[in-house]
Amino acid sequence: MVSLDLLKSLSLVSPTKIILLVIDGLGGLPRPETGKTELETAKTPNLDRLAASGVCGLSDPVGPGITPGSSPAHMALFGYDPVVSNIGRGVLEIVGIDFDLQPGDVVARGNFCTADKTGLVTDRRAGRIPSEKCVELCRLLDGLVIENVEILVRPVREHRFAVVFRGEGLSSEVSDSDPQQVGAPPKIVSALAIKAARTARIANQFVAQAEVILVGHFPANMILLRGFSQRPVWPTMGEIYKLTPAAVVSYPMYRGLARLVGMDVLSTGNGIEEEFRTLIQNYKKYDFFFLHIKGADAAGEDGDFDRKVAVIEQVDQAVTGLIRLQPDVIVVTGDHSTPALLHAHSWHPVPVLLSSHWCRPDGVKEFSELACIDGGLGRLPATNIMSLVMAHALKLKKFGA
Amino acid sequence: MVSLDLLKSLSLVSPTKIILLVIDGLGGLPRPETGKTELETAKTPNLDRLAASGVCGLSDPVGPGITPGSSPAHMALFGYDPVVSNIGRGVLEIVGIDFDLQPGDVVARGNFCTADKTGLVTDRRAGRIPSEKCVELCRLLDGLVIENVEILVRPVREHRFAVVFRGEGLSSEVSDSDPQQVGAPPKIVSALAIKAARTARIANQFVAQAEVILVGHFPANMILLRGFSQRPVWPTMGEIYKLTPAAVVSYPMYRGLARLVGMDVLSTGNGIEEEFRTLIQNYKKYDFFFLHIKGADAAGEDGDFDRKVAVIEQVDQAVTGLIRLQPDVIVVTGDHSTPALLHAHSWHPVPVLLSSHWCRPDGVKEFSELACIDGGLGRLPATNIMSLVMAHALKLKKFGA
Repeated sequence: MVSLDLLKSLSLVSPTKIILLVIDGLGGLPRPETGKTELETAKTPNLDRLAASGVCGLSDPVGPGITPGSSPAHMALFGYDPVVSNIGRGVLEIVGIDFDLQPGDVVARGNFCTADKTGLVTDRRAGRIPSEKCVELCRLLDGLVIENVEILVRPVREHRFAVVFRGEGLSSEVSDSDPQQVGAPPKIVSALAIKAARTARIANQFVAQAEVILVGHFPANMILLRGFSQRPVWPTMGEIYKLTPAAVVSYPMYRGLARLVGMDVLSTGNGIEEEFRTLIQNYKKYDFFFLHIKGADAAGEDGDFDRKVAVIEQVDQAVTGLIRLQPDVIVVTGDHSTPALLHAHSWHPVPVLLSSHWCRPDGVKEFSELACIDGGLGRLPATNIMSLVMAHALKLKKFGA
Repeated sequence: MVSLDLLKSLSLVSPTKIILLVIDGLGGLPRPETGKTELETAKTPNLDRLAASGVCGLSDPVGPGITPGSSPAHMALFGYDPVVSNIGRGVLEIVGIDFDLQPGDVVARGNFCTADKTGLVTDRRAGRIPSEKCVELCRLLDGLVIENVEILVRPVREHRFAVVFRGEGLSSEVSDSDPQQVGAPPKIVSALAIKAARTARIANQFVAQAEVILVGHFPANMILLRGFSQRPVWPTMGEIYKLTPAAVVSYPMYRGLARLVGMDVLSTGNGIEEEFRTLIQNYKKYDFFFLHIKGADAAGEDGDFDRKVAVIEQVDQAVTGLIRLQPDVIVVTGDHSTPALLHAHSWHPVPVLLSSHWCRPDGVKEFSELACIDGGLGRLPATNIMSLVMAHALKLKKFGA
C-alpha cells in the first residue's frame, strides 16, 4: 500500500466529489444449481453500466486467505493498514452503541453480575437480565465523578454495558476486574504501567460505589469490568486526504468507525432508499461520502441467498440517484465477502468497481466476481482503493520531479 | 504476505486435510515449433478437471524477475519469507545429504586437500578424490569427541564433506580455515564473537587431529573448513498453522528442508507412483501432505522438453489417486519454473491450481501457463499460497471484530 504519509504529502483540496458505496458482505460464492454468485444472480443493469464504463478488480481486505471482521475490513477501505489499526474490544463495544468517544477516554466492557453475601461471583451474567433492566441500572451508575474523572455508563444488551472514564491523564493499561469464573471474588483492577496507577484506583472506587448503588438489585448486584482500551490515535481522513468526509450509515458500529476516522456521521433512516436520500440531500456539503448498506451482509450471514440478491438489486435501483449527481468518482465494493453458502464472512476477494471520467476502462462489461477477475485494477489490497480513488478525483499531486 | 504471527494467531486445528503437490520446475517456456510450453504440451485431463472446478493463478516464488534456488522457492511455498529465511550453505550441504540436523548443531562445509611438507596447501581439492575414497576418509574422522563436543563427519561428493559439531554452547560465528588459494597454509579458525571462542578452539583441535589421522592418505592429507552455519531458528509449520504435516519426498535436500520446517518425512521410493502410494498409505495420520516430484525439474535442467512433458503426464495419471481421497484442499504447483529451453531454473511465474469445495471458481478450463493468467488467484507471491490453502481448509479464524 501507499503510505499514509506519502498520501498526506500529495493530497490536495479540490471541488471534485467522491462516493464510496460499500455493500457490506458483497462478495459471494456460486449457488451449485446455477453456478452463479449472489451478485451474478442479481439483475444489476445500473451497476453493470458503471462497470462497463469504469475499471474493475478484486480486492483483499486484510490479505489473501484472511477472513476479516467488519472493523478491519472498513479500516482497509478507508486506506488504513487493517492490522496496525486493529481496534480494541472495549472501544468497538462503545463505538457500536453510537457513542462519541473522545481522545483520552478509557473504555471498558462491563457485565452486571451476581455476587453472594461473601462477595463471590455466582453468575457472571446476572441471569442475563433483560435489556430494559440494563438501561435502568446503567442510569443509576451513570454520571459519577471520581477524582475529577467523569464516569459514563451506557447499556449495550442484556447484562452487558460499556463504561467510559473521561478526564485528564488516564491510561488503559490496567487489568480486568472480571475473574472470568464463578466462585471467585471480582479482582482488584491493577495498574500494568506506572502511569496507570490513578486509573486503576478510580476504576476500583467506581466498582466499590457500584456495589453500594446496586444493593437490592439482585441478581444484578455487582459489576465486572474487562478489556480496558483507548481510542486509537491515527490521523483523520481530513488530515490524510484533505477531504471533508461524511458517512451515511444506519448500523451503529460503522457510524462509530466513521467517527473514529473523522467523518461527519449524518442522521439517516434504516432503509436503503432513506440512506440514498440522505446522501443526495447532503451532497453539496461534503466532498467524500461513505455510504454503507448493511443488508447484504446480514442476508449472507443468515444463509439467505435470495434475500442477498434482493438487497443487491435494490441497491442497483437506488444507484441511479447517485449517478444523476455526476460525482467525479463512484466506487462500489464490499468490505468483505459474506457468501450465503458459508453463512459467514469469508476470505474470498471482493468485487470493486471504480467509475470516473478519468479511469482507463477495461473489458469488464458487468459487475460480478467472475468478470472482475479480468478487470484493469487486477487483484489488489483493499488499502490501495483510497489512493486510486483520490487519483481519479484529481486530488493527488505528482510525486517527485 | 500475511505475517506468520498473524497466521499463528488465527490458525486452528480442524479435521480437514490438505495436499500440496509440488511438481519441481513446473513452469516452462513454449517450444518455438508449437508455441506450447511443457505443461501445455502434456495431456493432463485430470489436472485440467481440477483447474476447471478450482481457482488458478501464477505465482512468483521470491519476486518478479527473481530466479530462485530450490531452497528459497520451497520456503516460500511453505509460507516463510524466502529472503529472510534463506539458509546458510553449510546447513544446506548437510540438509542435502539427508542428515537430521539438531538445533544448536554447528555445520561447516569441508574439503579434503593436499598439503606439502611445510604445511602449505598445494591442491584445495586433493585431486578430486573419488567419492568412495571420501566415504572411507570421512569414516576415519567421524565420531571424535573434543571437549565434550561430538564431531560428525559425512561425505558429500568427491573431495567434499560436511562436519557437524554437536554439543552445548556452540556458535557458528567463526572464520573459515580454507585460505581459498594454494601456496598458503590453512588458516587458524578464529572466533568472530566472544561466545564463539570455544567453538573456534574445538574446530582447530579437530583440524589438528584430522591432520594426524590423514597422514599417509596423500593426496587427501589435510582438510579445509568453511561456511560455518547453524540451523536457522524459525517456527515450525506445526507452530504456525497447527498442522500435523508430512513430507513425501525422494530427493534428499527437500527431505532436509521439510524437516527444518517441522514435517515428518515419510519413507518412500524414488518413483512417482511409489511417492503417491506412500501418501495414500499415510493419509489418515496427517492433515497436511507435501508431495514433491523432482523429475520435471531434472528434465528441464537437462533441456529435455519431451521428458519433462512425460513426467507431467505421469503426475496427471497419478493425481487421480489423490482426488479419490477427497482431501479438503489440493494445490498443484511448482516451486519455480525450469524451462527446457533455458536448461535452468528461471524467473517465470509458476502455475498454481487450488481445488476445494470452498473455492470461488474462475473461468480457467485447463492447467497451463496461458490459462492461469486469467485465473481468480491472479498473480500472487508464492508466500500467499499457504494462507489461501489454510482458508480454503477452514483452518483460519476471522481477524478482528
